[in-house]
Amino acid sequence: MTDRIRVFAPSSASNLGPGFDVLGLALPKLGDMVEAEPSVTPGIEIVEVTGDGGALTRDPTRNVAGIAAADVLRRLDGLEVGAPPHRGARLWLHKQMPLASGLGSSGASAVAGAVAVNELFAAPLSRHDLVASALVGECAASGTPHADNVAPSLLGGIVLVRSCDPLELIDLPVPTELRVVVVHPHCEVSTVVARRLIASRSYALDDAVANLGNIAALVDALHRGDLAQFGRSVRDRLVEPVRAHLIPGLAEVKTAALSKAALGCSISGSGPSMFAFAGSDDDAQAIADAMQAAFHDAAGLESEAYVGPVNREGARRVE
Amino acid sequence: MTDRIRVFAPSSASNLGPGFDVLGLALPKLGDMVEAEPSVTPGIEIVEVTGDGGALTRDPTRNVAGIAAADVLRRLDGLEVGAPPHRGARLWLHKQMPLASGLGSSGASAVAGAVAVNELFAAPLSRHDLVASALVGECAASGTPHADNVAPSLLGGIVLVRSCDPLELIDLPVPTELRVVVVHPHCEVSTVVARRLIASRSYALDDAVANLGNIAALVDALHRGDLAQFGRSVRDRLVEPVRAHLIPGLAEVKTAALSKAALGCSISGSGPSMFAFAGSDDDAQAIADAMQAAFHDAAGLESEAYVGPVNREGARRVE
Repeated sequence: MTDRIRVFAPSSASNLGPGFDVLGLALPKLGDMVEAEPSVTPGIEIVEVTGDGGALTRDPTRNVAGIAAADVLRRLDGLEVGAPPHRGARLWLHKQMPLASGLGSSGASAVAGAVAVNELFAAPLSRHDLVASALVGECAASGTPHADNVAPSLLGGIVLVRSCDPLELIDLPVPTELRVVVVHPHCEVSTVVARRLIASRSYALDDAVANLGNIAALVDALHRGDLAQFGRSVRDRLVEPVRAHLIPGLAEVKTAALSKAALGCSISGSGPSMFAFAGSDDDAQAIADAMQAAFHDAAGLESEAYVGPVNREGARRVE
Repeated sequence: MTDRIRVFAPSSASNLGPGFDVLGLALPKLGDMVEAEPSVTPGIEIVEVTGDGGALTRDPTRNVAGIAAADVLRRLDGLEVGAPPHRGARLWLHKQMPLASGLGSSGASAVAGAVAVNELFAAPLSRHDLVASALVGECAASGTPHADNVAPSLLGGIVLVRSCDPLELIDLPVPTELRVVVVHPHCEVSTVVARRLIASRSYALDDAVANLGNIAALVDALHRGDLAQFGRSVRDRLVEPVRAHLIPGLAEVKTAALSKAALGCSISGSGPSMFAFAGSDDDAQAIADAMQAAFHDAAGLESEAYVGPVNREGARRVE
């Protein structure tokens, strides 16, 4: 057991209103754990998956943690994509967060797998390479390369993905008073279905312009620590209107959050979780309570709420 | 003559790559002048227009400077839109920059008209109100409300228009070393035609996402003074591809600019002028020379080039 290491990767909220596929942040508390041991057999073996209710495969070529971990093995020895690995590792994946929740579940698994294998071999890879490996796993899960979950889960904080190809990540400033609320209602939205819905249509220039103004103002507000401007900028005219019908009670939950001084409220990733921002712990708790009550009253949905500051640490080795 | 005041409003480059309708900056040197005198006859009279080659009307209800000036008269007395004005002013509009150039010609006229009339009556209006009045004039010229020319022309600097309704403007930081190059080729692109072209089609989400990543990175780069990141972010996948065919030689001009260390290069406003950024005066001059040579060699077009720092001052009263 002395060779076994453990890595925790946090959940994440992506899009953050105007920033579809380019903005994400690491959430407090919730996330996935991967344990890893070196193996004499080259390649990745997934020994066990827990906490998934039997939903996830142990086939390492189809499990996001396995795929990301295998990409790390490849990079460790500078191998081409598809080349047989020189080294081997055995993984235990412990899901500690809901699947298909919009909270970056597949991203957290991919990050935990990638970081665990890197740690197992003395951590030679850069954070940039590790995000790239996690992205390979995430892409297998969602069908499209988008780094707005894996990047914050790995790096912590609020991350801007300027570009996926080539991968360019930017750490944005996080105002100290900023608090995040996420509420996960007990219903499921498939990431693949949610992405197909938005990919199959085209968009009006006016709506793109609205999001351009808002994401630019959001980044400016983070730099200047202006939470009021930040809150005004958490608006999405591109994707939220198209996906809103997938989430029962969305309008009421948003109204409830904003009535409690939320600094913006929108869908977390592809939903059904909703996020909101607040400027204090007390506001955050009141917003969470109001959002849960609205999910219950408007849609008959039970839910869990998570409240706290942005997770600045990202993925980390734990004892 | 003692009551006559003169106001200069600079030209502007808008869009700046990814920021269609939301980003603009004030240019050095080039701009429009308005002279104004109080009149006992209520309302705006345009006495003379010079420098326009006879292209512009003196009808104050159809001239952008007149429309903006009339809106200022209305605001000065808190009147409803359409109410007869209490005060009067006579204007002389001196065009000192090309029309339909993509350099914010109508915006400069609107700003000069609005600021001149405000100055004439002891300047009681806020900058925000003056931008709103200039926007009324600009809207009459272009057919759509977009403040990304009038706001920088009035305020100076690099301005983000988060929203036009309600009007919300954000001054962005300007790195001290940043230089702007604009090259105006001797051909015309109608703003109305250029806008109709882009408004009549719909857009792919991928292209909107690319611009979201770039505008967010551009704002971050301005705050951090990172000119390399700024340059990488001056890219437009929404509008430039649709309008490129309106500007003969565009591809060659862009290649020429980037070959001389330009920090990005794209269409200024609706063209045909092209802009580029540079990190020094020497680079800026070399880029301007290369862009002019490319317009000549690739499209047989003569051109003028303007080079300098961002105009931080905006519209100003002159003696």
